[in-house]
Amino acid sequence: MKAKEMMDKNFIYVYRDDTIDDVSNKMEKSRKFTTPVVSEDMKLVGWVTSFDVIRGLKEGLEKVSEIMHPKEEIKYLHENDPSRLSVIETSDKKLINIPILNDDEVVVGVIRSFDIVKTLSALYDIKVSKIYEAMEKELKGISWEELMEASAIITRRTTGEHIRPEDYERKILNSTFGEAIWATGGLEKFFVGLIAVGELVIARRVGRAKR
Amino acid sequence: MKAKEMMDKNFIYVYRDDTIDDVSNKMEKSRKFTTPVVSEDMKLVGWVTSFDVIRGLKEGLEKVSEIMHPKEEIKYLHENDPSRLSVIETSDKKLINIPILNDDEVVVGVIRSFDIVKTLSALYDIKVSKIYEAMEKELKGISWEELMEASAIITRRTTGEHIRPEDYERKILNSTFGEAIWATGGLEKFFVGLIAVGELVIARRVGRAKR
Repeated sequence: MKAKEMMDKNFIYVYRDDTIDDVSNKMEKSRKFTTPVVSEDMKLVGWVTSFDVIRGLKEGLEKVSEIMHPKEEIKYLHENDPSRLSVIETSDKKLINIPILNDDEVVVGVIRSFDIVKTLSALYDIKVSKIYEAMEKELKGISWEELMEASAIITRRTTGEHIRPEDYERKILNSTFGEAIWATGGLEKFFVGLIAVGELVIARRVGRAKR
Repeated sequence: MKAKEMMDKNFIYVYRDDTIDDVSNKMEKSRKFTTPVVSEDMKLVGWVTSFDVIRGLKEGLEKVSEIMHPKEEIKYLHENDPSRLSVIETSDKKLINIPILNDDEVVVGVIRSFDIVKTLSALYDIKVSKIYEAMEKELKGISWEELMEASAIITRRTTGEHIRPEDYERKILNSTFGEAIWATGGLEKFFVGLIAVGELVIARRVGRAKR
């Protein structure tokens, strides 16, 4: 995924000669704590945060140019950069917004921390039951009921929790992969559980074939 | 994972009677765009954003109590709530910070959007080889080499790509789960591939046991 696929194209921007009063109104109206400062042809020239606005108001300054951070101090990305870079920058530098530029250094969007949260969580927001359906389809000769029964057994074995196959089914119909990862304490543990289920049903199938 | 495991215990807070000037200094110094307002015994009573500070400065107000949002208007979570709720709130309501309370309504931390980004990406940023290590450990009597060989066979079967076991190994040592999801075209496909590998090695182990 590229930065341009994650960015918000609907962003506010201000000019160097705008007044601090204008900027603060624009930021409040759109609920944005930061905004890019652009030239007449939309090239990035600076960045203003609400801290800068507060400082400007306190010190009686007037123009954006007096409070903005110059381009050299700003973290930005280009539209074809991998969107993963925005994730790294956001969490390492504790940023909430990153401007995205095209090859002409024109601002074409902004990636916001809550957009990243949304994308990251949506990526893993599929129902656990979908994974089980794939498993049922892949493992020929194994029924859905056998998968639920094996899962109940493995759950009891690993957590001590007595859960009936029908309860397990209800659980996976209602929970997403993301939730399961958080609940089991990580990807490896979740996957180990699935493998154990697969191993159990395969062993049973082999047992049936032998009889 | 619970909210208390994700929250930042190192947060700023202000009192209702603090001056707007004090608050703005505190926010700027700590680079926080928002802060909880607490009572003398640290119970949550309100919330201030830098937009409120800007409005206060412009209107010549003086105290935090004149600019804060009352508790009823604030989104907060309790420390034992699933941390997933913070993800949902952040992306749905476009929040950057959420205060976390204990059972006595005392503020004990703040969850920030970039902390969520960090946790979410770390959660999925594990090497595919780690999943294979878990698989090797879980499936008794199956060696690493067998897993690599089975994976090369399954890859050939599903994609037509001729890959040697040692190439497969190099691939999973260098790629993360997140990348693998993108490469295989989705979570379900990735799991189906892994399950097929598991099935193949188990079938071979059973074959060995029979001889």
